[in-house]
Amino acid sequence: MKVVIVGGVAGGATAAARIRRLDENAQIVVFERSGFVSYANCGLPYYIGGVITDPEELTLQTPERFWQRFRVDMRVRHEVTALHPQRKSVAVRDLETGRVFEERYDKLLLSPGARPTQPELPGVGLDRLFTLRTVEDTLRIRAFVEREKPRSAVLAGGGYIGLELAENLRGLGMDVTIVQRPQQLLNPLDYDMAAFVHAKMRQEGVKLMLGHSVAGFEADRNGVKVLLKGEAALKADLVILAIGVTPDTRIAKEAGLELGVKDSIVVNDRMETSEPDIYAVGDAVEVKHCVTGEQTLISLAGPANKQGRIAADNICGGHSVYGGSQGSSVIKVFDMTVATTGINERTAKKAGIDCDKIYLSPASHAAYYPGGRLMTMKVVFEKGSCRLLGAQIVGYEGVDKRIDVLASALYAGLNGVQLKELDLAYAPPYSSAKDPVNMAGFMIENIAQGNVKQFHWEEADALPRDGSALLLDARTPAEYARGHLEGFRNLPLDELREHLEELERDKPVYVVCQSGLRSYLACRILAQHGVDCCHLAGGYRLYEVIAKERCAAECAFPCGMEGNH
Amino acid sequence: MKVVIVGGVAGGATAAARIRRLDENAQIVVFERSGFVSYANCGLPYYIGGVITDPEELTLQTPERFWQRFRVDMRVRHEVTALHPQRKSVAVRDLETGRVFEERYDKLLLSPGARPTQPELPGVGLDRLFTLRTVEDTLRIRAFVEREKPRSAVLAGGGYIGLELAENLRGLGMDVTIVQRPQQLLNPLDYDMAAFVHAKMRQEGVKLMLGHSVAGFEADRNGVKVLLKGEAALKADLVILAIGVTPDTRIAKEAGLELGVKDSIVVNDRMETSEPDIYAVGDAVEVKHCVTGEQTLISLAGPANKQGRIAADNICGGHSVYGGSQGSSVIKVFDMTVATTGINERTAKKAGIDCDKIYLSPASHAAYYPGGRLMTMKVVFEKGSCRLLGAQIVGYEGVDKRIDVLASALYAGLNGVQLKELDLAYAPPYSSAKDPVNMAGFMIENIAQGNVKQFHWEEADALPRDGSALLLDARTPAEYARGHLEGFRNLPLDELREHLEELERDKPVYVVCQSGLRSYLACRILAQHGVDCCHLAGGYRLYEVIAKERCAAECAFPCGMEGNH
Repeated sequence: MKVVIVGGVAGGATAAARIRRLDENAQIVVFERSGFVSYANCGLPYYIGGVITDPEELTLQTPERFWQRFRVDMRVRHEVTALHPQRKSVAVRDLETGRVFEERYDKLLLSPGARPTQPELPGVGLDRLFTLRTVEDTLRIRAFVEREKPRSAVLAGGGYIGLELAENLRGLGMDVTIVQRPQQLLNPLDYDMAAFVHAKMRQEGVKLMLGHSVAGFEADRNGVKVLLKGEAALKADLVILAIGVTPDTRIAKEAGLELGVKDSIVVNDRMETSEPDIYAVGDAVEVKHCVTGEQTLISLAGPANKQGRIAADNICGGHSVYGGSQGSSVIKVFDMTVATTGINERTAKKAGIDCDKIYLSPASHAAYYPGGRLMTMKVVFEKGSCRLLGAQIVGYEGVDKRIDVLASALYAGLNGVQLKELDLAYAPPYSSAKDPVNMAGFMIENIAQGNVKQFHWEEADALPRDGSALLLDARTPAEYARGHLEGFRNLPLDELREHLEELERDKPVYVVCQSGLRSYLACRILAQHGVDCCHLAGGYRLYEVIAKERCAAECAFPCGMEGNH
Repeated sequence: MKVVIVGGVAGGATAAARIRRLDENAQIVVFERSGFVSYANCGLPYYIGGVITDPEELTLQTPERFWQRFRVDMRVRHEVTALHPQRKSVAVRDLETGRVFEERYDKLLLSPGARPTQPELPGVGLDRLFTLRTVEDTLRIRAFVEREKPRSAVLAGGGYIGLELAENLRGLGMDVTIVQRPQQLLNPLDYDMAAFVHAKMRQEGVKLMLGHSVAGFEADRNGVKVLLKGEAALKADLVILAIGVTPDTRIAKEAGLELGVKDSIVVNDRMETSEPDIYAVGDAVEVKHCVTGEQTLISLAGPANKQGRIAADNICGGHSVYGGSQGSSVIKVFDMTVATTGINERTAKKAGIDCDKIYLSPASHAAYYPGGRLMTMKVVFEKGSCRLLGAQIVGYEGVDKRIDVLASALYAGLNGVQLKELDLAYAPPYSSAKDPVNMAGFMIENIAQGNVKQFHWEEADALPRDGSALLLDARTPAEYARGHLEGFRNLPLDELREHLEELERDKPVYVVCQSGLRSYLACRILAQHGVDCCHLAGGYRLYEVIAKERCAAECAFPCGMEGNH
């Protein structure tokens, strides 16, 4: 059997090694357009920033080592220019010599990945404009940085690569601005959770220009002018475009393979394309989203590697299936960690799912053991069934752990209430006896059983302030004095029982506290006294971060807070 | 409704608060023998070591705060001396005044916890002998340390408390010796994984006397003589007994409640005892082990808290059930992290389960990103079904994360192969594109599908060295030179294919490498050439740690290693 693989990174490299493990006699040829195989895509921004210092660290494997160990013929700087499914061959161009030849296959695996999306804007070809996808791109940017010592950078795009670049360029002392059309960074997050990221970025000196459109680029002596729609241009010594990626599927399209979302390659759960004996994996294929069941693009290394292994199994006559992706991801944002799994609230609503959400801000480990820090967790679940739809966490230590626990729960089909039962490992330096994930389960159960009702930050400003509702802040007077929601009256939780008689019990009551715990307790007391009440999910803590963020983004926004913010 | 709760820590305190949240009208009285409620049991060793400096950090709640917030009548220094189920009352002694009185209940919750097991040995009452269970014990030891400045300590018992104490007393500069009868520390671990902990302890200067029995204690001027059976006595300035805990169930026993393992209280899944309207939770009850289905004792804070909440739900007329415990635990051992979930191999075999195991030693995060460190993971699963039975991990960063993912998988009933499918969050600072847990899934699948056969460290020394089997070491010559298994011939993996013809293919082949990866690859090559082969699970790395540990524990042990160890 002769297997030809197009693309020698992530999925392609994984598949090549697995095929060899399963079939010592297969002939395996990999064509990789770039000069490197199996490189550490996700590490590239850290090389630019000097966190990873040795370029060899990025290239996990070399063609020589692949041959030695796996007898895989890795041909770098070879571009597959056409597929010929009828003849079972591919056309290849040796980029060094220009030679073009045809290579026959019995099985073909496409792992071409994606290309950085290139906006069709004037000036995109300029010298000081870069994209970041390959080792070559990385070395180019690093060389530019060392040679030109740029003092300012504009990053177009605020996704994973944009944020990692921002951190790394700040680390080099540059003045960094992120410009993008969407109103928030990190699309997998909901706006409320992104607000924490915005605050962190601003705190670290990154300028955010959200909701702005780039109109083009112009050379400007020793720099670039970034032209904005309806606004003054920005000047920068360096511009990196990181507005996303597009499946690199021209040859698949020309060969008539069935294409899906954004011209990605359609595959079944065995990673087979519409053409016999042609498989495809990685950023170039569309996958089923585990939560929505919809076909989607998920450009992440984890799924690509898993798919590569599955395709290899099937190429070798086995039967392995890919169950879909739930898009779990994590990113370091300076000293902060931001992680997601499943879908966010925005996506759930778009998909027409009737969903609810909880917010909590637990400590990373037992409060009495030194070094713990708060994280903010949002869990989105289906109303009624409590089916887990997704989770988002921002914080520091322990965020990556909780997202992986939630990702495992989601994979296993647990519902939100079952989170309370997870038997997680506890010791003071690592967790709390009731782990944050258990706490999320308790909270979802309380909502499901009707023990408490929530209202949300989006609704807070529109609450009736005409006296038809009672607005209570259950925190201490000192906390209240530091900032509170307009129109809310301070009645500390521990004094509530003594003042119950004074309350007008026929009015609906809205209760706020700092994190949502005391307001929950207040609601339990009120509800048992026949009061119709609900509390602010996530508390003033969440509201304040969002309100401040809105103020920062758009200073005219009436953020509804009093006190010194 | 009047609820009386015996014991105001963990389960009792949790239940009290939950009952109030569910029932604003209940009368709730808690009797706590010690002077403190809801204290941080698991933090006590860290206060002795000065890691936690403020004693108030240990006492999470006070009776006053409990009253203010929850209207729970917490009576500290009150000991419940008898239960009268027929009269629905308890007898109570006020330890301050000596007054004895009877308190009626509608519902009674027993959360008496456990007492440190006191060996019946001469000299147990000596001055410089301590046990550690309560805040009072802690303050007493801390005061002793500050006053007497002990320079040496003997700890009897090498469980969680013993190890945490060892670390904290070493941190104070003491000479620390752990003495115990079992041959290994940390009973939830198998011996092979405990070997890593032994090595760490020794490296940190803790003397281990495993397999030794304490015969008694004698005062010795300014110290204690710890008498050992058949051996010279040890001298120490301070002795702490930490040989385990015993359910504190005298009153339950006297009242005729059904008792189980070690006189623990028998409860059903609603946490109801054999007597109507009496519930019990925490270290005093026996629980069903999720994996074995057997009744067992699990003295951990997580289960106690969960049980307290469940009992509260049922006391208030709800229906909550406890599904059992899987014994997930984690402990910091100096800078090392050691964690387990489910059962270990020893327990599985005792329970008659036909089990297999894998070992892997993945990096905590992408190798190319700075700061990653190796962990060692052992996963035990049922043969055939691949049902997960348990996992143990020793390492540094990221150990607690992986055990919680495995604990969640175990809870959800995933089998070992499904671990490969978990969609975990990856970025270079946190993980690898194939997370260690995914890798475990791949390995279990390879075994299940017959892609590779393993042999184990226990069998390595008994392999035929008479030429009837071929023993190969697939590492590089340099690695081989640094130490290898006796009788194994060096044939680096990358040269194997060239030497295939020379091998006597009719003999069984045993292959070793450093971690088990290269030997697996070698086996794949060999097996496809018709050779009957298997490889050493965990590799030379695991074998070496165990062999060195055996040498350290018992110098006459023939550890079978050549080279400079």
